Amino acid sequence: MFPPTIQKLIDFFSTFPTVGPKTAARFAFFLKKLKKEKLKEFVNLLKEIERVKTCKICFNSFEGEGNICQICADRKRDNSLLCVVANEMDLEAIERTKKYRGLYFVLGGLLSPLKKEKNLKIEELEKRAKDPKIKEIILALNPTPEGEITTLYLERKLSPLNKKITKLAKGLPVGGELEYADEETLASALENRK
Amino acid sequence: MFPPTIQKLIDFFSTFPTVGPKTAARFAFFLKKLKKEKLKEFVNLLKEIERVKTCKICFNSFEGEGNICQICADRKRDNSLLCVVANEMDLEAIERTKKYRGLYFVLGGLLSPLKKEKNLKIEELEKRAKDPKIKEIILALNPTPEGEITTLYLERKLSPLNKKITKLAKGLPVGGELEYADEETLASALENRK
Repeated sequence: MFPPTIQKLIDFFSTFPTVGPKTAARFAFFLKKLKKEKLKEFVNLLKEIERVKTCKICFNSFEGEGNICQICADRKRDNSLLCVVANEMDLEAIERTKKYRGLYFVLGGLLSPLKKEKNLKIEELEKRAKDPKIKEIILALNPTPEGEITTLYLERKLSPLNKKITKLAKGLPVGGELEYADEETLASALENRK
Repeated sequence: MFPPTIQKLIDFFSTFPTVGPKTAARFAFFLKKLKKEKLKEFVNLLKEIERVKTCKICFNSFEGEGNICQICADRKRDNSLLCVVANEMDLEAIERTKKYRGLYFVLGGLLSPLKKEKNLKIEELEKRAKDPKIKEIILALNPTPEGEITTLYLERKLSPLNKKITKLAKGLPVGGELEYADEETLASALENRK
C-alpha cells in the first residue's frame, strides 16, 4: 500500500486525460521528490487558474479585463469568417500558421459514438453563426471518425442558415513521403488536386 | 499564445516524467475546466505531500510517526533478506505478490549510460548491506539495459561483502504465449528451466 497522501494523488492524477494508474503513481512520486519551492510554485499556479476566463463570444480561454477574448475584441480580424475548432489547442495550432485572420468558435470537444458529450457548445454555435456579419463557417475538426461525425452533424445543423460552410483540405502532410501516405489520405490528395 | 497562467502550467507539467508539451497543454486545460472544489482538493493534497516521509533505513516513502517505515519497523519481516528495488512502484509490485517477507532498499532510480543519475543511494546501500543480519541481497531491477547495467554495477560493488547476491528469474511471463515471447526471454526461460 502506498502512503495515503500518495494514493490520493494517484487517484486524482488518474482522472487526467490519457493518464492511467501507473503514470499517475510516477507523477505522485515525482511531486513528492520535488523541491519545496517548486511545489509552492505549482500550488500558486493552481490558485491562479481562476484568472483564466472563458470568452462569452467564442468560448476560448483568455486572461485579462472584461469577458471577451483578445481575438474577438480585435477589430482588425476578419469578422466574416468563423472557424470552428474542438479546443484551445487546435485554435492555437491554427493561430501559429499565421494564415488565418478570422474569428473562432471553440466547440469544447467532439461528438463521440461511445460516450455522451454533454458540454459541446452546439446550440451556442448555432446562435453565433446567425450573426449576419459571418459569411463563411470553416469546420476545422480532426480528420478522425469523431471529427468527421461532428463535422457532418454541424453541417446539417448549420445548413438552414444558408452560409458558406467549408472544411479543411485533406491531403499529403507537408514534408511527408507519398510512399508512406495511407490510402485514404492519398485518395483525398488526388481528389483535391489543383 | 495561450493565456499566461495556462502557459506556466504547461511549462510545469512538461517537467513531469513522460509528459511532452501537447500532453501538458491537455492537462492545463483539464485543470482549467475542473470544478472549483476539485481544484481546491488538489491544492490541499499538494500541501499534504510534506506528510510523506522517506525512511531513514530503506528510503521507501511512508506516512506516520518516527523516521522508519512500516516495513523496516515490522519485527515479523525476515531481516536476513534485503531486496533492492529502483523505486516505490517496484517495491509495491513485489509487495502485491505477497510472496516476499524480507526487507527492502529503494535505490531511487537506475544507472543510465545517457544521463547522469546523481541521486542513486549506492553508498547508502553499501553501508546498509554490511548489516551482519543480512544474508542475501536480491537485486530486483528491471530486465532493461539500464536495469542490467545497474545490476552488474551493484554486484561488483557488493561482492566484497561476501554475501549471497541473487537476481529475479527471467522467463516467460505467466499467461503469455510461447509463440510471442522474444528470443532473449525464451532463451532465458530455457536456460533457467527446472
